[in-house]
Amino acid sequence: MILKNDLLLRAARGEAVERPPVWLMRQAGRILPQYRALRERLSGFKELVETPALAAEVTIQPVDELDVDAAIIFSDILVIPEAMGLPYDMIEKRGPLFPETIRSGSDIDKLVAGEDAAARLSYVYDALELTRKELDGRAPLIGFSGAPWTLLAYMVEGSGSKTFSRAKRMLYQEPALAHQLLGKITQTIIAYLHAKARHGAHLIQLFDSWAGILSPALYREFGAPYLRQICTAITEVPVTVFAKGAWFALEDIARMDCQVVGLDWNISPEEGRSRVGAEKVLQGNLDPCYLYADPEQIQAATQKMLDAFGGRHIANLGHGVYPDTPLDGVRAFVQTVKHYRYK
Amino acid sequence: MILKNDLLLRAARGEAVERPPVWLMRQAGRILPQYRALRERLSGFKELVETPALAAEVTIQPVDELDVDAAIIFSDILVIPEAMGLPYDMIEKRGPLFPETIRSGSDIDKLVAGEDAAARLSYVYDALELTRKELDGRAPLIGFSGAPWTLLAYMVEGSGSKTFSRAKRMLYQEPALAHQLLGKITQTIIAYLHAKARHGAHLIQLFDSWAGILSPALYREFGAPYLRQICTAITEVPVTVFAKGAWFALEDIARMDCQVVGLDWNISPEEGRSRVGAEKVLQGNLDPCYLYADPEQIQAATQKMLDAFGGRHIANLGHGVYPDTPLDGVRAFVQTVKHYRYK
Repeated sequence: MILKNDLLLRAARGEAVERPPVWLMRQAGRILPQYRALRERLSGFKELVETPALAAEVTIQPVDELDVDAAIIFSDILVIPEAMGLPYDMIEKRGPLFPETIRSGSDIDKLVAGEDAAARLSYVYDALELTRKELDGRAPLIGFSGAPWTLLAYMVEGSGSKTFSRAKRMLYQEPALAHQLLGKITQTIIAYLHAKARHGAHLIQLFDSWAGILSPALYREFGAPYLRQICTAITEVPVTVFAKGAWFALEDIARMDCQVVGLDWNISPEEGRSRVGAEKVLQGNLDPCYLYADPEQIQAATQKMLDAFGGRHIANLGHGVYPDTPLDGVRAFVQTVKHYRYK
Repeated sequence: MILKNDLLLRAARGEAVERPPVWLMRQAGRILPQYRALRERLSGFKELVETPALAAEVTIQPVDELDVDAAIIFSDILVIPEAMGLPYDMIEKRGPLFPETIRSGSDIDKLVAGEDAAARLSYVYDALELTRKELDGRAPLIGFSGAPWTLLAYMVEGSGSKTFSRAKRMLYQEPALAHQLLGKITQTIIAYLHAKARHGAHLIQLFDSWAGILSPALYREFGAPYLRQICTAITEVPVTVFAKGAWFALEDIARMDCQVVGLDWNISPEEGRSRVGAEKVLQGNLDPCYLYADPEQIQAATQKMLDAFGGRHIANLGHGVYPDTPLDGVRAFVQTVKHYRYK
């Protein structure tokens, strides 16, 4: 099947393009009325994640509604811990909760890893294939995974947290245990991402959502090395690394075998480019709160951001779009990018 | 009254000292058994804040128990909104909650500001005087305030929040309103801090706890200018600015009329020094989670940090100490600093 819109892939490979491609993290979600309508009919979030036809439907909604340049498969980063033997619940308005967590070496020994764990995620691969078919080449399809540190954080902490102090405590108190767990998670992610590419993902994004709560020294020991292993292993499609809050690790990330580096809204495009260097493509980074402003302000801010990046850039927000963002704000952002032209 | 231990003040003024002074943010609190025992007898957090004898007692506890080089008055940053006419409740395990929030220009017009608001905080001034008397010169007494942006965030959002999107929305949608509110808050803080210095504070620390959720551009417009006004106004005692998460604003903060710049644990001492420049004294920045490790590890990490700062440094954590930190970990940190000597 031929991609009618391959702008994202050309940009990710660093080719000269007429304008930056644009998509939004969490574009398939509560900002869309059709998503909210579908969710109301379902028992919960996990039904949506685990039913390929439904996951495909919501994945395509933002392409239909917003005309973005990419679809990102509707799923959750916590499918990996679950496939490894640590199931989670998604509690409405509270977030994920793991009834059991990792406490000891024997807990880690019991986990399934690598191909055996990845094989349990056939519902994700089915959703990718179905989405590819239904998208019919209108936009490339992004697959994703949580990064090893972020997944360890949930598996040890058991839920979201302001400080993730239980998870960080493991890094300080039992570093060997942490490395053992990170190794198993990394093997699983690599097998999972190979499968995602085989089943239709055109590009892979790694989300290290909790990178920013680690100190530079901790991230250098427990975060970056495992991301690097994944980047080295995934050669069949371009890879984007988005380590939220980890401005201090951008130089390390720039040396990984990835094509795109995501930036959050805490860093200016100029400083991002200077830290990452000239080679990689950058993705980001408008403050998601900006989309509450008037369309004229959003247009001006978006143009300013595009000018500041200048090129080798994929337009996005600096974080997932907030669920209560007005659709007009989202449209103003997307349309501004689509009308922009590099000089 | 003569200060028997003026190490903090000599260090803050940039004088050559034999070792860095050491204290911990949130040292007066749940880490101490005597604090927990006192809290159990009280109706709530606010009774402690508003009763000078009790506030003085818990302020002095860490000087007795941990032998730190400074006391910091037990209080809350939200006494300022309350004095301006916006009362708050402190909900156990959930944090602050404002029954009413700022929504419009008329809400702002109704706020009391400046001297009139500061005059309502006599319980804080009484607590300072009582603490000074009871401390009897054993350690300098730090007074503090929330920074204008952080106080606006609570006054508009009404509670803590992961994104503070309601507060940020005001910055984007109604910037004139935000500036009006920030101006009133700033006037009040200045009057309050003059009074604090008059009633015995030896040094003032400004906490911009939510600086890190703003983009560099927003912080330059709504954060830094008001901090700068306060630094310029408070000339009677040294001032510390701690803008958590705002690594991108350190160059701006370095140009303010303050003596000390606080660093969180996300930045290395070397990068902190390079951003702030040679002149200011730096404060921080061990990861609070490090205090869960073994005493030997804490000692090694603390020494490494002290070596990295090298001088012009006040030893502290990179954030408030976590309530469940073992006292032995805290002691290992404090004692390591106290036995350190500059070469």
